[in-house]
Amino acid sequence: MKTFALAFVSAALIGALHATDPLPSWRDTAPKQAIVSFVEKVTKEGSADFVPVPERIATFDNDGTLWSEQPAYFQFFFVVDRVKALAPQHPEWKEQEPFASLLKGDMKGALAGGEKGLVAMLAATHSGMTTDDFEKEVGDWIATAKHPKSGKLFTAMVYQPMLELLAYLRANGFKTFIVSGGGIEFMRPWVEKTYGIPPEQVVGSSGGLKYEMRDGKPVLLKTPELVHNDDKDGKPVGIQRHIGRRPIAAFGNSDGDFQMLEWTTSGKGARLGMIVHHTDAEREVAYDRESHIGKLDKGLDAAKTKGWTLISMKDDWSAIYPPAP
Amino acid sequence: MKTFALAFVSAALIGALHATDPLPSWRDTAPKQAIVSFVEKVTKEGSADFVPVPERIATFDNDGTLWSEQPAYFQFFFVVDRVKALAPQHPEWKEQEPFASLLKGDMKGALAGGEKGLVAMLAATHSGMTTDDFEKEVGDWIATAKHPKSGKLFTAMVYQPMLELLAYLRANGFKTFIVSGGGIEFMRPWVEKTYGIPPEQVVGSSGGLKYEMRDGKPVLLKTPELVHNDDKDGKPVGIQRHIGRRPIAAFGNSDGDFQMLEWTTSGKGARLGMIVHHTDAEREVAYDRESHIGKLDKGLDAAKTKGWTLISMKDDWSAIYPPAP
Repeated sequence: MKTFALAFVSAALIGALHATDPLPSWRDTAPKQAIVSFVEKVTKEGSADFVPVPERIATFDNDGTLWSEQPAYFQFFFVVDRVKALAPQHPEWKEQEPFASLLKGDMKGALAGGEKGLVAMLAATHSGMTTDDFEKEVGDWIATAKHPKSGKLFTAMVYQPMLELLAYLRANGFKTFIVSGGGIEFMRPWVEKTYGIPPEQVVGSSGGLKYEMRDGKPVLLKTPELVHNDDKDGKPVGIQRHIGRRPIAAFGNSDGDFQMLEWTTSGKGARLGMIVHHTDAEREVAYDRESHIGKLDKGLDAAKTKGWTLISMKDDWSAIYPPAP
Repeated sequence: MKTFALAFVSAALIGALHATDPLPSWRDTAPKQAIVSFVEKVTKEGSADFVPVPERIATFDNDGTLWSEQPAYFQFFFVVDRVKALAPQHPEWKEQEPFASLLKGDMKGALAGGEKGLVAMLAATHSGMTTDDFEKEVGDWIATAKHPKSGKLFTAMVYQPMLELLAYLRANGFKTFIVSGGGIEFMRPWVEKTYGIPPEQVVGSSGGLKYEMRDGKPVLLKTPELVHNDDKDGKPVGIQRHIGRRPIAAFGNSDGDFQMLEWTTSGKGARLGMIVHHTDAEREVAYDRESHIGKLDKGLDAAKTKGWTLISMKDDWSAIYPPAP
């Protein structure tokens, strides 16, 4: 009887502990310990490291940090699908690079023109429409488009441990922001539902906007120029412009996040800088120094001296993607 | 005894009603009724006009809407004080306009150069330093500088009814934003304490920022170019860039707010557009169509057809400024 009661109590306790673990997909290794210890420190009133709620700002890169980014940034798949959808209205594209290659399914050829070709594709698919129309295009696409390799919806390729981390930080009074090189208007239509991050907490690369009247109603027209490139040096600039306060925690995965991590962790008081290291060839993709996308080289060397914690996807995460619905 | 009890109950009831009036400095006239009716409509679950909390975005102009703006934008007094403070490091200013006039106390002369002179003064006082240093300069100034006519701190010249309105909207699930032609970095150091609006909810005119290393530490250097002019057409653009969602309520006072009001109130569903009309020569300043600052002309004509409510400071507000502490 006594043994039974003890066993019952233990099971209940273990159940309770498990139920209250806010980070169940994080293995009990250094990164999880770093997160929990940081959060406990900054939220403990009276402690030397206490940070008032309004200053609890955490910033997250998106591609490769909150969702996958291989074999190409997911926004690029949107570009491809939009070029195909728009092709009937642009017969000239059949003879015009990079569109001709892209329409023939030759991605290598489409990307051969380098930045110039990419800018042409971005301009063709991301400008000339109103912000309302673009929002609808992105919303329709993200609801149905599938990743070419996994066959999953792109929004099913977000990282479960990062979803838990976002929720855990918010439960502890943090405001969570995305600070991504991706297009700000490309992210806003779906990140609220996917990550719980509202549009006003999204910082990203931004094109031009023009206010004008159409049929007596005002619209905001998307224009092709690049107004802000939210990558590398552009990340602290974007943070200052949108948030106006230095984050106390930042999460990235590539050298494009270096300056955001540097800016965040060089502030006074307790700071947390973390890098998602893509080490899991089996469950995701393994890449770092040599990758054409999400290259992590300088950051990998600097992590130790800068006090940034590397998160090994293979070793520190028990799950990568959310369970299928 | 009965009469006494009744009187007691009535007094208690009146007290309770008064205590729960969230807008005590608003007279019981059309603007207050418009505000309360709008808020009740959009917050009533199940009603056709119900708006979910995340979409309850309200935007406020600052100069002339949340605080006074006469005889010059308060940011201009900051410019004047900074030019004086910096003059010893710039002996050449003694012979160089607009600085020479300004240092002699000749404001008319200082402004005679028009926009070019203004840009020179802004560049001299708003760039060349780090964001941290500028924040400190503004913070120190706003804590001590006094308005030349009223002798009050500038932050004591905010409008009490608007403070109540901000709090009332927030208590009803609204997120309140400033959308001002004023400098974004000039507002952020003090608006949180003054209006309860955090830095990340401030949209304003923005200069350049450059990320660089100084003595091994990263800084953000303010550079002189104007990156965003948050006035007129620039207001809907700034709203889209920062907030990414169309407000459902907007408050302004001048033709510089016209497009913000137009953009806000032309959206679907219940919308609220209001204009603070400076009608009170006794308690503040009376001005509209002919004013050199905060000119309200086009907006005054359009209010009726656009369904915007005019707030007469003289008739609709029982108090202008907060009581002296």
